[in-house]
Order: sequence, then C-alpha cells, then structure tokens
Amino acid sequence: MSPLVVQQLPMAKDFSSFLSKEGAARKKSPLKGLLRFMQGDMISLGGGLPHPSTFPFYSLTAEIKGMGPEQSPVTTPVPVDLTTPQEQQKAVRGEVVTVPHGPQANKVESLSTSLQYGIGTGIKALREFCKEHVATMHAPKYQDWDVVLSAGNTDAFAKAIAMICNRGDLIFVEEWTYPTALETLDPLGIGHVPVKMDGEGMSAVALKELLDNWGSTPDQGGVAKPRVAYLIPTGQNPTGATMSIQRRKDIIRVAQEHDLILIEDDPYYYLQFFIGEDQKQTEGQKDQDNSNNGWMPTLFSMDTDGRVIRLDTFSKTLAPGCRVGYMSMNAHFCNIIQYHNEVTIQQPSGFSQGLLAEMLVNHWGQEGYKRYLTENVRTEYLYRSRHLQAAFKKHVNGKYASFIEPSAGMFLWIKVHLEEHPRYGKVKDNVLMLELFNKCVEYNVLMVPGWQFSCKPKPTDIDPSDLLGSWYDEAATYMRATFAYATFDQMEEAITRYGEALKAVFAA
Amino acid sequence: MSPLVVQQLPMAKDFSSFLSKEGAARKKSPLKGLLRFMQGDMISLGGGLPHPSTFPFYSLTAEIKGMGPEQSPVTTPVPVDLTTPQEQQKAVRGEVVTVPHGPQANKVESLSTSLQYGIGTGIKALREFCKEHVATMHAPKYQDWDVVLSAGNTDAFAKAIAMICNRGDLIFVEEWTYPTALETLDPLGIGHVPVKMDGEGMSAVALKELLDNWGSTPDQGGVAKPRVAYLIPTGQNPTGATMSIQRRKDIIRVAQEHDLILIEDDPYYYLQFFIGEDQKQTEGQKDQDNSNNGWMPTLFSMDTDGRVIRLDTFSKTLAPGCRVGYMSMNAHFCNIIQYHNEVTIQQPSGFSQGLLAEMLVNHWGQEGYKRYLTENVRTEYLYRSRHLQAAFKKHVNGKYASFIEPSAGMFLWIKVHLEEHPRYGKVKDNVLMLELFNKCVEYNVLMVPGWQFSCKPKPTDIDPSDLLGSWYDEAATYMRATFAYATFDQMEEAITRYGEALKAVFAA
Repeated sequence: MSPLVVQQLPMAKDFSSFLSKEGAARKKSPLKGLLRFMQGDMISLGGGLPHPSTFPFYSLTAEIKGMGPEQSPVTTPVPVDLTTPQEQQKAVRGEVVTVPHGPQANKVESLSTSLQYGIGTGIKALREFCKEHVATMHAPKYQDWDVVLSAGNTDAFAKAIAMICNRGDLIFVEEWTYPTALETLDPLGIGHVPVKMDGEGMSAVALKELLDNWGSTPDQGGVAKPRVAYLIPTGQNPTGATMSIQRRKDIIRVAQEHDLILIEDDPYYYLQFFIGEDQKQTEGQKDQDNSNNGWMPTLFSMDTDGRVIRLDTFSKTLAPGCRVGYMSMNAHFCNIIQYHNEVTIQQPSGFSQGLLAEMLVNHWGQEGYKRYLTENVRTEYLYRSRHLQAAFKKHVNGKYASFIEPSAGMFLWIKVHLEEHPRYGKVKDNVLMLELFNKCVEYNVLMVPGWQFSCKPKPTDIDPSDLLGSWYDEAATYMRATFAYATFDQMEEAITRYGEALKAVFAA
Repeated sequence: MSPLVVQQLPMAKDFSSFLSKEGAARKKSPLKGLLRFMQGDMISLGGGLPHPSTFPFYSLTAEIKGMGPEQSPVTTPVPVDLTTPQEQQKAVRGEVVTVPHGPQANKVESLSTSLQYGIGTGIKALREFCKEHVATMHAPKYQDWDVVLSAGNTDAFAKAIAMICNRGDLIFVEEWTYPTALETLDPLGIGHVPVKMDGEGMSAVALKELLDNWGSTPDQGGVAKPRVAYLIPTGQNPTGATMSIQRRKDIIRVAQEHDLILIEDDPYYYLQFFIGEDQKQTEGQKDQDNSNNGWMPTLFSMDTDGRVIRLDTFSKTLAPGCRVGYMSMNAHFCNIIQYHNEVTIQQPSGFSQGLLAEMLVNHWGQEGYKRYLTENVRTEYLYRSRHLQAAFKKHVNGKYASFIEPSAGMFLWIKVHLEEHPRYGKVKDNVLMLELFNKCVEYNVLMVPGWQFSCKPKPTDIDPSDLLGSWYDEAATYMRATFAYATFDQMEEAITRYGEALKAVFAA
C-alpha cells in the first residue's frame, strides 16, 4: 500500500458512545506502564516474571505439512487416525519446525519469549503475520484499524459483547444461529432479536424494516433499539448460507443508516467452494468477486467507518486446539480488547503462538499460507460437501427432505417436508420431528435437531440435554448435517440410513 | 483414600444462593447433550468438528527437563538466553517428549484429540493428573469436589467473579493486592473492601470486625455485606506475606461464621522456601505443617463446606505461556465454570495440554512433578530470595528502608522509612516517594511503586501509565522488588544502585 493511498483513507469514526459500562471502564494496566522505563542500562526488579532459564522446556518441534515455496507439490501423506502407532511412525513425514529456547537469528520469538508473560495483543511475529494477512485479504478502507489475537472466536465474541453491550440490551442475530452465541448472551442478560434469513443469510430488507419500525410492536415498546448485529456471513452455521456481495453491501448500508455495529463472525471464511477451477464451472451461478483471487469480499473489507468487528480463527483452517484467532477492527476497540485479555487469558498459549509464528512466518510465509488455504482447506471441504450432497441425492427421497446447496462452510441444512407426512396437520410438527430424530437414532445416524439453532425462548423447565422432551420450536423442521468430520464411506452410510429413517417415519 | 474414609467426608453445602445472575443462568450446552448418543454403530453428522486428518500438525515434540524416576540426579544444563544459537544448540540436552498425531499406546490423548474441540473441563489425562495432584497435596475434606482446567489464574479469577458477583457487589481484598484483580473487578462494577494485613497476610481479626460491624459506617450504610473474599495466602503479591496455619484456620472460621466464599489465589504456593534442609535450619521460626512434606496446608485443604475456590496455575512452576491452570472447588461450581469455558476459551490450548499431559503423565509422573517442584521451583526461588536479601543487607542502609523476610513467593516489599528524611512532615509522603522513584530511574534501577498495589480509589483524571503524576496514595510508602527475573549479578548491581538512590534522596 503506497503512502498516497493511506492518505486518502479516512480515519475510523468515534464509537465511544457504543461502549458498555464495562468496555468504557477498561484501562491500561499501570504495571504495563513501567515498560517504558526499560531502556539503556536499566535493571528491572519490577515485573514478577519468572526467569526463562527456569522454564523446563528447552525447545519445541512439530512435524507439519510442508507449504514452503520449495515444497514439492506432492501432498505429504496425512496420518490417518485408524492406523497403529507403528504404521503411523512410518507414514508421517512432515516438515520439521523448531522453536528454540533462546534467541533466534530470524524474526520469530523464541520459546523464552513466547512462554513468558507479554502484552494482551499476542506475540509480535504472529500478530504482524495476521495483520499482514488481513491487509492483503481485505484491504481495509480506513486507516486506523488494527489486529489483536484472541483465544478463538467464542472468546473473541464474548469479549466483543462485553465491550459494547450492557445487561438489558438487545442485539440482532440471524433467524437460525450458532447456539453458543446465544449461550454467551443469555447469562449476561443480553437479549437477541432474530432477523429473517433467505438463501443468502440475514435479509438486509428485514433488518431495515425492524430498525425503521422499532418500537411499533408491543414487545418492542420502551425497549432501546439494538445497536449491534451478530452475523456469520460465510457458510453460516447452521444454514450454510453465504451472503452475496450485494447482500453484504446492503447490510453495510443499513448499518450505516442506523448506526449499527456489526460483529462479523467468519470462521468458515476459508471454506468457500467456488474458486479456481471450480469457480469456472459455476461461473454465472455465483456472485463472485474475482478481484481477490475469488475469495468473497468481507463486511470488514467494505467498512469505511470502523463499525465492523471481524472475528477470524485458526480453528477451522489449522486446528481448533490452537485456541488462536484474531480480531480485526478499529484501533480503539483493539485497545479495549487488549486490556480485557490482560485481565483474563493474558495471551493465547505460548506453545500455540510460538509454533504458529515459526510455521507461518518462517516456513509457509504469506503465500504458502494462502496456498494452504486454497489447496487444502477449501478443496478438502469442497470434496466433502460434494460427497455428502451426492449421497443425499442418491439415498434420500427428495419428497421427504431437501437442502439448499451450500457454497461454503461445513453444513447441510436439511428441510424436512412434513406436509408429505400422513399425519401432517393432525399432530404438531415438532412431534413429527421428534419421531424422525428418534428413528435416526434407532437407525444409527446422528444429526443436530433444528431446534438447537432456534432463537425462540427455550422453555426453562426442560433439561437442555434431554432432546426427547425439548423439540419445542414447531418451526424448526430442519436438521443440520455436517460433512466436516465423517469419512467418505461413513457419510455415504449415514445418509443411506437417514434415507431409510425418513422412509420409515413418512410411512407411519 | 479408602472407601471408608470417603464415607465419612461430608458433601459440600449448597452455595446456589451465592450465584450471580450470570452464574445462575449458565447451562449445559444442548450441542454437548448429543454426545450421549455416540455409542455402538452410530455415525455422527452432528458436531461441526474438522476431521483431524486435516490438521497440518503431524506430531509435537519438546525437549524438556528430565524428572522421570530413572533420570540422573545431575541437573540437565539449562540454556541461557545470552548464548548464541550455536552455543545453545550444543548446550541443550533435554529429555524428548513427543505427542503423536494418532492413537497412543499409553493413556494420554494424541494430537488428534487435544487439537480437537472438547468439553470445557480440559482433556482427560491432564485434568485427571491435576485432580490426583490436588488430592494428594490437599486431601480435600468433603466428597464432591472437582477440578476444571483454566487458562491461568487471571482467567480463572475473572470467571469465579462472574459466577458469584453481580454489578454493585463488594468483595473483601487484602489491603495491598494484585493490581490485575482490581482491574478485573472495576470494569464489572464490583467494588472492593480492603482488609488490614500484617506479616501473615490478611488479618482474620480485621475481617471479622468488618463483618461483625457491617453497616455501622456511613459508607457501608445500605450496602449489602460482602459475601466473597479474595486472598493470596502464600507469598502474597506484593507483600510477600504467607499465612501461618493458625491464620488460615482463623480465616476459615470467620468465613464459616459469616458464610463467606473464599477465592484462594495461590500462584506462589510452590515457591515456599522453608522446607527439607532449609526447613530444619528455620525450625521453630516458622509455623510449618510437616504432615504434607512441609508444604503449607491450604485454605482449600481446611474447607469442609465447599466454600473455597482454589486457583492453581502452571505459570510460575512451568512457564506463564502455558496458559494452563486448574480450579479446585465444589462440583456445582466446577460445572458452571465448565459451561463458561465452553462459551469463551473452550479449553486451554491443545498444544499446551497435549504437551503437559505427555510430560507430566508419561515422563515425570506425580512423584517426578513433586520432585521438580521441590528441587527446582522452590530451591530456585529460595536461592534467588536469599541473594536479593543478602544484597539488600549489604548495600542498603537499614535506616532508610527495610523489609519483612518473605517465606514464599517472588517479592520483597520494601518499606521506605520516610521519617528519617530531612523534609519529613514538611512535604507529603507521596512527594518524597516520587522523588525516590525518579532517583531510582536516574540510577537505572526499576521497582514497582507501592501505589500500584493500593486499594484506594485511583484518581480518574490521571493516565494510569503516567507514574510521575500518579503517586496518589500517601500511605503507599513501599516499593516492590522481585527476585524472580534478574540474574544474580544484576540483582547485586540493582540493589547497589538502589542503596545509592536512597542515600542521595535522604541526603536532600
């Protein structure tokens, strides 16, 4: 980015008035204020840091998938869970990544730093890698954006909410949404307002209508208009919906019009299927932006105000257990999240950070990581998605159930056509759905009941783990199936069983 | 523990009425409720877990300090930060610990599990190791206690507070305390009531007096009596004070009398100096319990009700960057923290957990870990403590400053004798303290200003990172020096400079 371009970008607007009591009260720690004296010949008896020579870890090494520039294009064999340790020993031939204890010749922190206390943004090498990645992927449209590392998107969401919502507030969510998001909000006394969805996720029209007419319904009377919307724009959980570019623009426009903050939770962003060769096949079908190698432009990339809080994670691209993600947003918000980190998690794990930094900065590089995302992540999920869809078309009678083809993510959102059931209209829909779920269990195939993604208030008198008593939402005539985990053979078998379960239930 | 003994232990009391709105509203996630269907021939298309074959990590290896039963007693050379990478390569000869990708013959989770999503208690092998360690160290006095892993004590404290405190509540804290604890409370609108301390930490008498007479002072009128106390009983930060056994018993008794929950934050527990050989030298001086190899009995070990929330961490014993700790408390509270974890951090990092589990379970074992704690952790800090104290006695004029000898922890809490200053009584104490701090900076020695540990309300109009303008607490005539970080030579030099700075300031 040339200095000239930087000059032309606006500064973020001031969103101080959006801060919650908690967010507004977060301050820099005085202890960290001592750091500025650490120069020249200063000896510190200040911070209570254990000396790194006491750490019982001398070096950290991992065998990883090679993605460096000189890596052979032949994929390193991936170890399979079912092999014996002996077989595995032979099969695994990864590139070796080592994080030494002491100072390194290269620019990545050694273990003695990444295993030490540090500031709440995360270690420098990893944070800068993430920031550079964000800059090239999303080309932010205002100057003072920044990146702070998180312990994954669930922790990041909880911190974002704590920063901008008070007990009693309401936020907008998609009509069907990630249950953990609601479980984050509920105990904090923050309510949610579902917004209608279509095949492209949250409807901008429905959002605008809710905002334009806020206060007009009895339950909205006297309740402050929500100022925050939570969205999963790509491969939405559970519906698999991905917003088109136009939809994203429309959502941004509504947010500007009504001064909303948008939380863009995008864990499935790199699980987009229609790119490269596959994109050509689907040309014309999908609303793609080829300006960024075919990746869908994000809400964050369209935000000229600093009103989007973007949540990225390595959970779906590398592994959930990394517990490392990164939040991209205006610098003021970044500072507040940093201070919040410093009184909670401090930083992501130093083992995670040290290893990821070494791998990403010194082995893969920005280009290697992008190749990995393209050649591995999205290809893997594309094939998995296709396989489950093909199995569905082969083994499930379309009269009983169907789905909208997902263009990203991990999920098929299966609509059950209860109107074809002989007892339809005679018993409640949820009774039939429960019968189907029980039949699936009997036939040994497990999917997630649609009610788990419902935004309707859950009855308080049921045990949430008791599925048999809790298919409470009559409109939840859906089941969520994932193609992320099972083997290809298992997917085929599971869908065969599902087809039979449907047949058995619809025959009744 | 024989079944007979278990029979005799009581069950924890019911502390439901202590839960905050947030704590009471935390529920088991319905998604996790699906797990119970996973048996027999079931194929799951349920949970959105990436298949572990997609993880680009094939194995994880670390060179660690050997502490296994067959380990030679000769200490493995510890790499020093200042050596070159080449020198270090030669110097480091650690025991090699490997976490493979796929299934292991032993009982520790492989990478494919520890890098996967899991339940909010942490992985089984590590949690069970911690629980067994807690059982043998503290022999809990009620039956239904449990352990849940945390991302370290700061996150654990924030979660404990969220579970049992509402905005507007007050909690008891020590007169001087860990600033991060206050920074956790402040933004949540939770106030703190300082309790007088002496050389043994929080005074049980002062605590009892506050409770007995609650409501009698104007500022307490109409304010609900605090129901929670936060304590750092061992090697307290910043004062270095360690509670005697009697003091611990007294605190427990007051807590029972007034139905208080105690948060026992004990990161310095294993940094106790007076044990084994050293203990003999100090026999009679210290109030030691030899029933547990000389480790001080904890508040948790004396708790028959389930009213103590104990926070342990690997930050001070292994390395801060592990971001792994564990909370020991009644099982009801454990469940709530588990659910909180599941909507925030999920679990500690899988790299941290996998490596620690493999190291602790399969390499060190319970005995090896205890030997490590004794032979390394407390010995290291004992020598460091002695060195700083000796330097102080040698280089500092006792007329100007002194400290109470700490029996645990990382800190000397230095009392400055301003009454010896020629301008004492003519200018305010904090002006003199600020002069001393500035002189220290001029002489290139950094200690933490005492006001940073003050419980008095901080002025809102100062930048908390601006030390020069913010020595606001006149009673804070202390400075905190740590012996944890500097080399032995640096400590000697730093204290020499400190002695000179004192001399210069007191001459003025």
